[in-house]
Amino acid sequence: MTGVADAPGDAAGGLFGGMYAHGRVGAEVGDAAWLRALLDAEAALARACARAGVIDATHAEAIAACCVPERFDAGGIGQAAAASGNPVVPLVRELTGAVGGDAARHVHYGATSQDIMDTAAVLVSRRASAVIRADADAVADGLAALADRHRSTLMPGRTLLQQALPTTFGLVAAGWLQTIGTASRRVNAPALAQLGGAAGTLASLGDAGPCVTAAFADELGLAEPVLPWHTDRGPIAELAGALARMCGAVRKIAGDIVLLAQTEVGEVVEAGGAGVGGSSTLPHKRNPVAAVSARACAGQAAGLAATLYAAQAQEHQRAAGAWQSEWLPMAQLLRVTGSAVAWLRTSVERLRVDPERMRQNLDLTGGLPLAERVTTDLTPDLGRLPAHDLVKAACAEAVESGRDLADVLTQRLDGRRTAARVAALLDPAGYLGSADLFIDRAIAAHRSRVADENEQLAEETEHG
Amino acid sequence: MTGVADAPGDAAGGLFGGMYAHGRVGAEVGDAAWLRALLDAEAALARACARAGVIDATHAEAIAACCVPERFDAGGIGQAAAASGNPVVPLVRELTGAVGGDAARHVHYGATSQDIMDTAAVLVSRRASAVIRADADAVADGLAALADRHRSTLMPGRTLLQQALPTTFGLVAAGWLQTIGTASRRVNAPALAQLGGAAGTLASLGDAGPCVTAAFADELGLAEPVLPWHTDRGPIAELAGALARMCGAVRKIAGDIVLLAQTEVGEVVEAGGAGVGGSSTLPHKRNPVAAVSARACAGQAAGLAATLYAAQAQEHQRAAGAWQSEWLPMAQLLRVTGSAVAWLRTSVERLRVDPERMRQNLDLTGGLPLAERVTTDLTPDLGRLPAHDLVKAACAEAVESGRDLADVLTQRLDGRRTAARVAALLDPAGYLGSADLFIDRAIAAHRSRVADENEQLAEETEHG
Amino acid sequence: MTGVADAPGDAAGGLFGGMYAHGRVGAEVGDAAWLRALLDAEAALARACARAGVIDATHAEAIAACCVPERFDAGGIGQAAAASGNPVVPLVRELTGAVGGDAARHVHYGATSQDIMDTAAVLVSRRASAVIRADADAVADGLAALADRHRSTLMPGRTLLQQALPTTFGLVAAGWLQTIGTASRRVNAPALAQLGGAAGTLASLGDAGPCVTAAFADELGLAEPVLPWHTDRGPIAELAGALARMCGAVRKIAGDIVLLAQTEVGEVVEAGGAGVGGSSTLPHKRNPVAAVSARACAGQAAGLAATLYAAQAQEHQRAAGAWQSEWLPMAQLLRVTGSAVAWLRTSVERLRVDPERMRQNLDLTGGLPLAERVTTDLTPDLGRLPAHDLVKAACAEAVESGRDLADVLTQRLDGRRTAARVAALLDPAGYLGSADLFIDRAIAAHRSRVADENEQLAEETEHG
Amino acid sequence: MTGVADAPGDAAGGLFGGMYAHGRVGAEVGDAAWLRALLDAEAALARACARAGVIDATHAEAIAACCVPERFDAGGIGQAAAASGNPVVPLVRELTGAVGGDAARHVHYGATSQDIMDTAAVLVSRRASAVIRADADAVADGLAALADRHRSTLMPGRTLLQQALPTTFGLVAAGWLQTIGTASRRVNAPALAQLGGAAGTLASLGDAGPCVTAAFADELGLAEPVLPWHTDRGPIAELAGALARMCGAVRKIAGDIVLLAQTEVGEVVEAGGAGVGGSSTLPHKRNPVAAVSARACAGQAAGLAATLYAAQAQEHQRAAGAWQSEWLPMAQLLRVTGSAVAWLRTSVERLRVDPERMRQNLDLTGGLPLAERVTTDLTPDLGRLPAHDLVKAACAEAVESGRDLADVLTQRLDGRRTAARVAALLDPAGYLGSADLFIDRAIAAHRSRVADENEQLAEETEHG
Repeated sequence: MTGVADAPGDAAGGLFGGMYAHGRVGAEVGDAAWLRALLDAEAALARACARAGVIDATHAEAIAACCVPERFDAGGIGQAAAASGNPVVPLVRELTGAVGGDAARHVHYGATSQDIMDTAAVLVSRRASAVIRADADAVADGLAALADRHRSTLMPGRTLLQQALPTTFGLVAAGWLQTIGTASRRVNAPALAQLGGAAGTLASLGDAGPCVTAAFADELGLAEPVLPWHTDRGPIAELAGALARMCGAVRKIAGDIVLLAQTEVGEVVEAGGAGVGGSSTLPHKRNPVAAVSARACAGQAAGLAATLYAAQAQEHQRAAGAWQSEWLPMAQLLRVTGSAVAWLRTSVERLRVDPERMRQNLDLTGGLPLAERVTTDLTPDLGRLPAHDLVKAACAEAVESGRDLADVLTQRLDGRRTAARVAALLDPAGYLGSADLFIDRAIAAHRSRVADENEQLAEETEHG
Repeated sequence: MTGVADAPGDAAGGLFGGMYAHGRVGAEVGDAAWLRALLDAEAALARACARAGVIDATHAEAIAACCVPERFDAGGIGQAAAASGNPVVPLVRELTGAVGGDAARHVHYGATSQDIMDTAAVLVSRRASAVIRADADAVADGLAALADRHRSTLMPGRTLLQQALPTTFGLVAAGWLQTIGTASRRVNAPALAQLGGAAGTLASLGDAGPCVTAAFADELGLAEPVLPWHTDRGPIAELAGALARMCGAVRKIAGDIVLLAQTEVGEVVEAGGAGVGGSSTLPHKRNPVAAVSARACAGQAAGLAATLYAAQAQEHQRAAGAWQSEWLPMAQLLRVTGSAVAWLRTSVERLRVDPERMRQNLDLTGGLPLAERVTTDLTPDLGRLPAHDLVKAACAEAVESGRDLADVLTQRLDGRRTAARVAALLDPAGYLGSADLFIDRAIAAHRSRVADENEQLAEETEHG
Repeated sequence: MTGVADAPGDAAGGLFGGMYAHGRVGAEVGDAAWLRALLDAEAALARACARAGVIDATHAEAIAACCVPERFDAGGIGQAAAASGNPVVPLVRELTGAVGGDAARHVHYGATSQDIMDTAAVLVSRRASAVIRADADAVADGLAALADRHRSTLMPGRTLLQQALPTTFGLVAAGWLQTIGTASRRVNAPALAQLGGAAGTLASLGDAGPCVTAAFADELGLAEPVLPWHTDRGPIAELAGALARMCGAVRKIAGDIVLLAQTEVGEVVEAGGAGVGGSSTLPHKRNPVAAVSARACAGQAAGLAATLYAAQAQEHQRAAGAWQSEWLPMAQLLRVTGSAVAWLRTSVERLRVDPERMRQNLDLTGGLPLAERVTTDLTPDLGRLPAHDLVKAACAEAVESGRDLADVLTQRLDGRRTAARVAALLDPAGYLGSADLFIDRAIAAHRSRVADENEQLAEETEHG
Repeated sequence: MTGVADAPGDAAGGLFGGMYAHGRVGAEVGDAAWLRALLDAEAALARACARAGVIDATHAEAIAACCVPERFDAGGIGQAAAASGNPVVPLVRELTGAVGGDAARHVHYGATSQDIMDTAAVLVSRRASAVIRADADAVADGLAALADRHRSTLMPGRTLLQQALPTTFGLVAAGWLQTIGTASRRVNAPALAQLGGAAGTLASLGDAGPCVTAAFADELGLAEPVLPWHTDRGPIAELAGALARMCGAVRKIAGDIVLLAQTEVGEVVEAGGAGVGGSSTLPHKRNPVAAVSARACAGQAAGLAATLYAAQAQEHQRAAGAWQSEWLPMAQLLRVTGSAVAWLRTSVERLRVDPERMRQNLDLTGGLPLAERVTTDLTPDLGRLPAHDLVKAACAEAVESGRDLADVLTQRLDGRRTAARVAALLDPAGYLGSADLFIDRAIAAHRSRVADENEQLAEETEHG
């Protein structure tokens, strides 16, 4: 029936996989992806040794030919890893057996387990990051379109969850665009190959060490490090930070969507297909499931990043625990970030904006949010604080009496401003400041980032 | 040939399972365990409704008969969960289909998804916690034996990683015993059933709500809450804290083992069987793999606990993301705690103590660690600070000149103490203070905890 | 004119003190409080030594007479602490100087710096915790009154920030009450004295160690530990967890207040005095400043707790950094928790509830939240899923057409239910399930906690 | 005599200031620094408004002339901040009063509190970061010198705290150099000015908004943002990550120093002056106080960074708590990072290296660490695994029998290698691989970073 019996306890891939491994990132961080990356590293090492003249090219190709994930059993290797403290030891044992013959002597030549694990972690991170950035870019494209389309859609600006001054939904979307766009630029997984041998000196490669390292990095499209980084986890910490920042960006945007979708606000809705967002008991509800799921995934990032930052404290030439504590949090952080961004993409794609409701909400406060404008207008005559006090008193009177703010203000101003002037001052469409300019700038910055990225991709394709 | 193809991305169960899902806890927190717990909750709900007279007993039994994990596909339910935001909605749909007939109308009666999820989370936590405590108790038993056996085994006490005063390995083990013993007592997963219906009022159960809740809790061996705790996550936070504390205990003990096993210290060794602790490149090494793996697992706890503490901020009657962000961190936290404790158990079982090396290390400093004793002996005559200064100067002279500290001190004391008196003062065996008493106390406290726990288990068995 | 010049960089006590050191907790965790606690410990040690016959009683009293915080300069001691790694070394030096004469020889007798620091930390934590609990109890009293007063005040229950079923504000307040009440019970700072000497053996006290320890604990109203806990940080971790849980409780409640106070919801308002909650630029705004500040303080707890959990990994008999990393996070965690609870107390005291607005909001959805009730009513006839589908379709029609849900349902039910029956089913006041019972239970649980606490306080006073 | 009475609870500036606010960073993040930055922002705003023609230049200069920190009372402002939720409201009130006359009307013109707070936070961060980088650069210089000086100083490379292969202290120092050097490059505080007005539209500045913003940024030497980033906290998150990475680098290096300074290892010592590193009770001890303190400070970073990552979830146009929760963690994170780096600088300056002890330790294992080399030498003849097995057996025999490894190996090899060849293979000086090259590269990378930084500083000076 199901595979439950042999499900070894994956809280992410199975029962919770729909939420926590949403989109394409799950496939990039699972066992198959890790196995592929580990074998890519072993194959590259063999070829690099051959390029440096350390081993025969035919042996290298014999090894590389066996570096096929489907030939290995992740579960079995994982169990065997318990004896050695990492999965590379049993993987190398199995690979050596699979290669056989003379070539078998050159499997894993000159490397230590951590060389292969770290290089594989870099490959996994880069592949997962590419997926994350692609989804983030799609979110950004969607937001850029919304920003442009809704540049005149008035809505309340809100501070401390209270209506403040009017803004436009275009500017709100532009702010989201800038938030996710700049976060996405940082999601560049470390590109450093790792090769240092048992103590970081490459001793067993003799004079060939630098040649092998250069060729190894080249084979994998990675950069050669200044020196082995077995216990310099800066690159991992930097990735962790970029992913946590991205999740923060998702939480900001998805959080706003959830707030705007509240029953009493109703300015946006996630328009899912049939069966999406339904409640098991409340037939009328239309839950913003995608934004909620994005928050659920993104909310796990800060703690995971803290684990990885703390794991930088690694002893001597190889850590006794801290290094080994990185693998799962890193995979999880990539996974929840990828899922969060994928969910946000779904949410933005489903988003329906209700300009009428935005305007109704803006009118709820009867001009109160524009009181600042009247204060500003009066300041040259009265001074800022007296103007502030007069307006505040008028607002209070309007709220308590239920009277129109324009009327109260006109009366209290006692001829210092006409009723028409007061009405104009209280018109939100006339009080948007630089909103339009900011939208233009955010879209231009987005286009510039897209152009940069395309250029970079073209270069990588050309040279890669 | 392997299952890689369908491995959906489990960084814990497969490739890294040997390390991160060590021991018996993995089976308690995986998909199968969750599915079982979810179905236990649905079955208990049906029976509770029958006991309260809300539905027919035959219907309840028909439902309960279908609550068999093997009939359901965790992966499929997980994928379908993406549409509704939690796995209960598709599970109930499948269960309803499986039950069929009139009974099908009463599946999930009166409950909301979170009632089932939270109750299942409590069941999963309790089952995993039982495993964790059992392993911790085995560690404690082992440490109690070591404490008793080595109560006269002299070794250097170390502060700031410098030798300070002598202690015994028995006292060190007694300290570890107290650390893990008290931590283990706290690992009591929350025992509260959850039942509140769509908004926490049990409205759809009418007057029967309290009866159904009481019966529901009783069916599962859980306590009835004061009121539904859908957005009061105190019980979850408390579990998180207890697990993080336990992991801290493991890190303390495993860290000490790693330090004592250093090549230059060599006071303990993890004596594994063939192939255990070997290095892929260094044939001579005997790594303390179990202690290292314990640290690797335990090092992930603080960040996961932080995520769960932060997730307490849940809105209104059901959270829009924070609740959904709990499932994976909680399962992970149970898993790494269980693995950490199981690894520590392995490490303690493998531990070989080297009393000779301990004594050699103690002698390395030629009596310097007992300088305090001389200070104390002189204090009544000279005052504490002058005594301190005199002894410090003697120590410095002994270190710089390479002369024996006893000689230097006797000379500097100039007749105020005989050479024999100085030698006696510098004998570590005579300067152990209350070490023995502390060992007795720690063992007594351990026995008292074991007795309490047995009593509690007996009660649970009797009433459960 | 101000003290800015010598403000050595206190982000909590000065510029940000109004927010981050709100209420009475600031005074319990600052330098003066620490100095007092350190000196309390030294005085108690001297008296304990006298009670055990180790030193003269007159010397002990001479020492205790000098243990007056005002005689010492925290800043100077702090600067001198840099040389020794903790403030006790310079404090003891100054205290010894202040005592003078023969008694000076017995200052800090038998103790190590950590004995005094840890005991002082326990004292500081207990004093701060008492303040935190008192404020939490005041919050609970306020909430119990609200729960009782508003047991019939209808309002929308909300899940995922969407209106779900009706509830009452009384039940909402009862849920908050239970959340903070149970969290408050856990805020019991560790009560263990610390005394172990340089390596945890009490060697320099000879046979008198246990007597001195017992008397030391007794002098301070603390418990005697099983053995020194210099590197068993379980008690600190447990305090950290209790405080983080409390902050989670505050975030839940304050978060709900902020959401209920939104302009578009308006169900509660923080009615501050003049100048409270005003905006620098928006004269009309009434910000829920106290709830916002409570969230700002409480939001810092999870990270601080993670630091303390991580700091449990302490080496051998005294840690080389981890112990020293506890002091500031612990003080900060006490401070932000105390401030958060004090702010919440302010918020609850200022809270004005608007039952009319609650009812208006409930009516916004025209009966949609009660659709579940119709589903339930129809389930015996139609089965749960067909009933669910029929009601869902009716809800959709009502929403799209703008027609009254009761009419649409009556029509679609086609005689299976009368219009009067449909209207009754859609009346929220008739669909509150066990809300009232839950309120009674929460209030009873609160009273029981208060009674327990009073009893405990009475015992402490009697014996203390 | 003391200031205790008015010490408002600063756990960092006073009693613990010597440890937690070490070096120059304390002065950059305290109240005086914040007050200065807030007033710099207000002065720059006034001048920017004048440059944009919005207010009179004479008014601007009148305002700027009052923006002097010494005129304001941080404590009083802090207390008043409790009413408004941030310190800018009372600061503006006091500043307005101080300016007086017509100019007073233009204080804080067009800005919202968050504009000033965020801009001040950027200024504080930049100033503190400059100090942190300067100390880190000094550490790097010291390490570069050590790397060069000790390129032939043999020592054991250690993995999992077990001796592995030989390395040199030069390479160890080079690894530390690369770790801190790359971390330091990231500590670039955000350079964005903040100006958006009450809802991020700059509405109250009318058409002048962009001109004022550009001039505002220019006045402060900051960059103009694409649009206001009131609720896009990416820049803050990025700073948090860079600081946490830096602290991780410190923990790695300081941790190694503590380990190398162990009594049983003794390869380095922190040679402090009189009274430094002394123990209150152990006159002979020489604790590595600076490294220990560096660890104590750095160990607090990951949790603080997690708080700031989590605080990115900010609602709408201004957050209701999350923004306000940033101030203290950010100041603390800057402070502990600065202190950690300053302590590490002290530690490196005090470091005395003991090449003889390093060699003795290397010889402890009688050639065992070079067993890998023999394996490699034999691999072409025997295959890797048989060679590994033979050597492993020989090592085991040597360890158990106490015989010399060279003898055992020569005998077991039975003529396949001469005794001289075996001896040469076991000479550590001949098995250092690329160690020297890596040292050269690390030093070159350091020089290149220094040159880049100097160039950048020159540019900033020229244009700034």
